[in-house]
Amino acid sequence: MPSSGRSMDSRAGLAATPGALPYYVAFSQLLGLTVVAMTGAWLGLYRGGIAWEGALQFNVHPLSMVIGLIFLQGDALLVYRVFRNETKRTTKVLHGLLHVFALVIALVGVVAVFDYHRKKGYADLYSLHSWCGLLVLVLYFVQWLVGLSFFLFPGASFSLRSRYRPQHVFFGAAIFLLSVGTALLGLKEALLFKLGAKYSTFEAEGVLANVLGLLLVGFGVTVLYILTRSDWKRPPQAEEQALSMDFKTLTEGDSPGSQ
Amino acid sequence: MPSSGRSMDSRAGLAATPGALPYYVAFSQLLGLTVVAMTGAWLGLYRGGIAWEGALQFNVHPLSMVIGLIFLQGDALLVYRVFRNETKRTTKVLHGLLHVFALVIALVGVVAVFDYHRKKGYADLYSLHSWCGLLVLVLYFVQWLVGLSFFLFPGASFSLRSRYRPQHVFFGAAIFLLSVGTALLGLKEALLFKLGAKYSTFEAEGVLANVLGLLLVGFGVTVLYILTRSDWKRPPQAEEQALSMDFKTLTEGDSPGSQ
Repeated sequence: MPSSGRSMDSRAGLAATPGALPYYVAFSQLLGLTVVAMTGAWLGLYRGGIAWEGALQFNVHPLSMVIGLIFLQGDALLVYRVFRNETKRTTKVLHGLLHVFALVIALVGVVAVFDYHRKKGYADLYSLHSWCGLLVLVLYFVQWLVGLSFFLFPGASFSLRSRYRPQHVFFGAAIFLLSVGTALLGLKEALLFKLGAKYSTFEAEGVLANVLGLLLVGFGVTVLYILTRSDWKRPPQAEEQALSMDFKTLTEGDSPGSQ
Repeated sequence: MPSSGRSMDSRAGLAATPGALPYYVAFSQLLGLTVVAMTGAWLGLYRGGIAWEGALQFNVHPLSMVIGLIFLQGDALLVYRVFRNETKRTTKVLHGLLHVFALVIALVGVVAVFDYHRKKGYADLYSLHSWCGLLVLVLYFVQWLVGLSFFLFPGASFSLRSRYRPQHVFFGAAIFLLSVGTALLGLKEALLFKLGAKYSTFEAEGVLANVLGLLLVGFGVTVLYILTRSDWKRPPQAEEQALSMDFKTLTEGDSPGSQ
């Protein structure tokens, strides 16, 4: 998949980074970090802070999910746009590792909320937020396993990889967006449970959480934009290019990778 | 933008429809209609039905928004994938008209909720759902106006159109996804306001609404998949192809469209 001309520069085998890309990446990081900081501020200012024991255990949940399934998952998607000249293997490992960190941190957040519910005697998994969250976790784990077996193990042929790649990218983006949607549902749930009718009086907590919601949307849209802009795709490197040049014309059984 | 080989067939100037596309489109319509029907069923079974006068006026809001900003907006995005051999102009007009219908129906839904709030003396625009909804409406209207002036009026040059097209597609998809997210937030709000703590006892209404939420997500993902799959893009037709062949090599001031 050669990226479309203009911004590529093949001097010395290095592709120049498209001019505007670093600014968009910087903006995405600013948004992502603001989202994490604001989630922390919300929990600190209006929810008594964070602790593993007692009533504050619930607060581990939103913070972990935002760090893991929003910020780190989003950044994992951007790895191929940011690291354009490192070897493909290095970039893949970084992509896989960021997703592992994201998943582990998310699991801490999930354990926190189940544990909190158990201690309080609350019901589990009744809300749309929890159904979407469960769906995200299952899809995320499956996507990671399938991605690992296709791209990181040497077994899969080039033709298999090239047919799976667009599916992996699509479902990666879809899972990320569903994570953002699930976060919005969770935020809304937390607000309505606590504020109730006071939500409509523009209480400071409600306004702060609404702004946090819009910033979550902004982070999601920015990551999606960087990911999908066709002339920002990672250019194939010299050695990959030599192998993939005649890729599309190869018959399907006859792939160099499976030899 | 020629679509990538395999599924194209240029006999008689007609491009063959990719084999799996009709099944995905049929599935999307099945999901979309199910979402509309289920929204109606939810309002009929658990919310007393629909009327413009009295307490039932609120219920016009979710139904109109789902018909307009979910189903019709989604279908408007699919027009170029479904109508592959009609003239570009016919397809454009259909795309623009579907978006107009969507916007008009959505405006009915917006008027319904503001009118209902006014009569009841409720506050407006305090919730994350309403902030996201307002954002969607503004972006939707701007996107429609800019799209109209770039693509339907003859003034814009080919090079300008070709540079704007990917932005139009990206923001169209983003606005659609934000509409789905906003619908989920609204659904959740309606559930929590009415059910409160009963939501956690797996009340029938809560379960039905959760399923409706997952179907909304399913419709969004299916539309996005059909829209973004690169070998399902609308192939350029004979006359467009002749004009756009050397498109990328044209200098920017020198476009046939502006002459």
